[in-house]
Amino acid sequence: MFEKYLIETKKNNVLIHNITNYVTVNDVANILLASGASPIMADDIGEVEDITSICQGLYLNVGTLNKRTIEAMKLSGKKSNELNHPVILDPVGMGASNLRNNTVKELLSTINFTVIRGNVSEIKCLETGVGAARGVDSAEGDDGGEDKIDSVIKVTQDLSNKTNAVVVATGIIDVITYKDNSYLVYNGHKKMSSITGSGCMLSALIAAFVTSNQENYFEATVAAVIAMGIAGEIAFERMTEKDGNASYRTYLIDAIDNLTKEVFKERAKVESR
Amino acid sequence: MFEKYLIETKKNNVLIHNITNYVTVNDVANILLASGASPIMADDIGEVEDITSICQGLYLNVGTLNKRTIEAMKLSGKKSNELNHPVILDPVGMGASNLRNNTVKELLSTINFTVIRGNVSEIKCLETGVGAARGVDSAEGDDGGEDKIDSVIKVTQDLSNKTNAVVVATGIIDVITYKDNSYLVYNGHKKMSSITGSGCMLSALIAAFVTSNQENYFEATVAAVIAMGIAGEIAFERMTEKDGNASYRTYLIDAIDNLTKEVFKERAKVESR
Amino acid sequence: MFEKYLIETKKNNVLIHNITNYVTVNDVANILLASGASPIMADDIGEVEDITSICQGLYLNVGTLNKRTIEAMKLSGKKSNELNHPVILDPVGMGASNLRNNTVKELLSTINFTVIRGNVSEIKCLETGVGAARGVDSAEGDDGGEDKIDSVIKVTQDLSNKTNAVVVATGIIDVITYKDNSYLVYNGHKKMSSITGSGCMLSALIAAFVTSNQENYFEATVAAVIAMGIAGEIAFERMTEKDGNASYRTYLIDAIDNLTKEVFKERAKVESR
Repeated sequence: MFEKYLIETKKNNVLIHNITNYVTVNDVANILLASGASPIMADDIGEVEDITSICQGLYLNVGTLNKRTIEAMKLSGKKSNELNHPVILDPVGMGASNLRNNTVKELLSTINFTVIRGNVSEIKCLETGVGAARGVDSAEGDDGGEDKIDSVIKVTQDLSNKTNAVVVATGIIDVITYKDNSYLVYNGHKKMSSITGSGCMLSALIAAFVTSNQENYFEATVAAVIAMGIAGEIAFERMTEKDGNASYRTYLIDAIDNLTKEVFKERAKVESR
Repeated sequence: MFEKYLIETKKNNVLIHNITNYVTVNDVANILLASGASPIMADDIGEVEDITSICQGLYLNVGTLNKRTIEAMKLSGKKSNELNHPVILDPVGMGASNLRNNTVKELLSTINFTVIRGNVSEIKCLETGVGAARGVDSAEGDDGGEDKIDSVIKVTQDLSNKTNAVVVATGIIDVITYKDNSYLVYNGHKKMSSITGSGCMLSALIAAFVTSNQENYFEATVAAVIAMGIAGEIAFERMTEKDGNASYRTYLIDAIDNLTKEVFKERAKVESR
Repeated sequence: MFEKYLIETKKNNVLIHNITNYVTVNDVANILLASGASPIMADDIGEVEDITSICQGLYLNVGTLNKRTIEAMKLSGKKSNELNHPVILDPVGMGASNLRNNTVKELLSTINFTVIRGNVSEIKCLETGVGAARGVDSAEGDDGGEDKIDSVIKVTQDLSNKTNAVVVATGIIDVITYKDNSYLVYNGHKKMSSITGSGCMLSALIAAFVTSNQENYFEATVAAVIAMGIAGEIAFERMTEKDGNASYRTYLIDAIDNLTKEVFKERAKVESR
């Protein structure tokens, strides 16, 4: 059933405004293009409202935030809310500094987000205020594995109820939650954590999917998480002996570019909870 | 006849100062290296004039402009004019915001550009003041196809006469114009629009070619456009079933690195109008 | 003997704080991951001390410095010194502008660096105050070749004695010096200079190695230089006819991801002087 969201995304060519970190920005742009969307990056307060207005969706990522871009995020987020555009937040490194914690809290208090996506540590820190992240990676024990999945579900449900956003916590198992309903996605590959930006790219992909499928943000988000997980599997299967993480990065984006509804349908591993 | 400009570019190892967007900056640097040039990026007002002075050419790209870098662009542009260096402008996203429109106009009024390159929508917006761009992409109908090529030629001629710059409008057919003379380049592949940065990279390549061939800016620009188009074709021909846009990006830069005068000569599809 | 430093680096998963240029930042992040380390990029003065504090090592690179990030570098460097973390400096483009020269001098006067790595021109300019760099590349004659290696050794020894840092000058032969002792590394391939970022990536790799092997900064640095040189060789050997510099970049990072102690040991070409 989720493949229809992929089809729409590939077809609709939505325009996404991105205020994102400079580490993975090129990958974010290319995965948006691979998904059928078009990216535009703009972060000067003198133009972000204009840019938001010509786009259909907004993606905010605090990975390399600074005073200048924080203001830009607020302005574009408010403008998106006025225009009823979907807004996606990636709280990269939540828990790693007071500036990040305070910025994310401020964004949450001034902007209504459609989807919030982070790794398990980031989402836990966001919900509970207790930070145990390891930089931009999940802390040990926050791997989203089978044994602790109930506690991850609980955290995403609490955060979703508080924010009215779809909440995604990615790990070995990915949890996607809206209010008291959750989906678990079992697609993906551990090699995804050997490159920078697999989280940033997933958040961008979610932006493309929800902007292309505004009648059902929740399921569109689930579909984006499945698509990324499948791409992670396909990319790994394609690796030869000499390939390493840099080739894997290329193959991951390629796999989104080539993803068909048939492959999506055949490979999707998802259950509702 | 145009292949001689490729040969000179590969040989001369010119140094290009780039003030460009952070989305595609790595690709810009690598394509400059692939062409035989060397890149340096610097955008602090405290050093841009120094950097411009040790370089032989300047490339300005407003893709992720901000107040700080706009000033840097003006300073380095003026310094380049003083030193009689070629200066290339890429008005990325022209028409997408007032800040971009005003910045580009201000740059045009204070700096003499050697070449201005944009997609058809950007060039039309620059010349007519009417913006119909779709973010950083051309609007529908502005694809530079056969049926509307006369109007594209007209716009580039008007802009070239006004600015004294060589004007390049890229699309299905690429138009390169100086004053009332135009060349049409039929090389290229539609897959080029599936990656971010093919426009930014072409503008950088033009910077390398005109800086290496200062005796004929117009023909050197045509040669750069042909080279990029051929690279786009070679990159596509190289794709295997599993390759997508990310591999295509790699192959595109590779093709410039490996481009020989023989292949250039054999594949070039250009006519004067 | 140097392979043990590779093993530790692959195992320890140290967290490195990077304030680096936006041109090659993605490659820096991916090579750190390939080496077994984890990267975090943060450059706002409001958070750099927090970020430094949760990391184990710091990498400062002035490639696209600006007033804002210069302050961030100073703050994080001082914090790292307080915490006895290793701090690595890459003086990219030293000699290319007064701002770079003054910034590097100021960083050297306020921060104790563990390792300083540059190309031969940058290191010479840093030691002698006389700049002959060609942008971010070594000047002609500063290629680190056999005939002038004694003068390169002399410069690195002078700079190491003055700064108490391990000093690395890379070229055809790489020189790694601590006080009056030097190692020469003969690994590497000239194709490494056909991509942007091979220097930046090596400096990041050194950060990973010294942070993972704090009992012997000098030898850990030598090991990182050997590893990068071997990766440069393996990447070149892997190239097919159609591959160019963009594929080479991918293969270089891949080679670090796949580098084993056996291959390291077999290929290392190093001698002490």
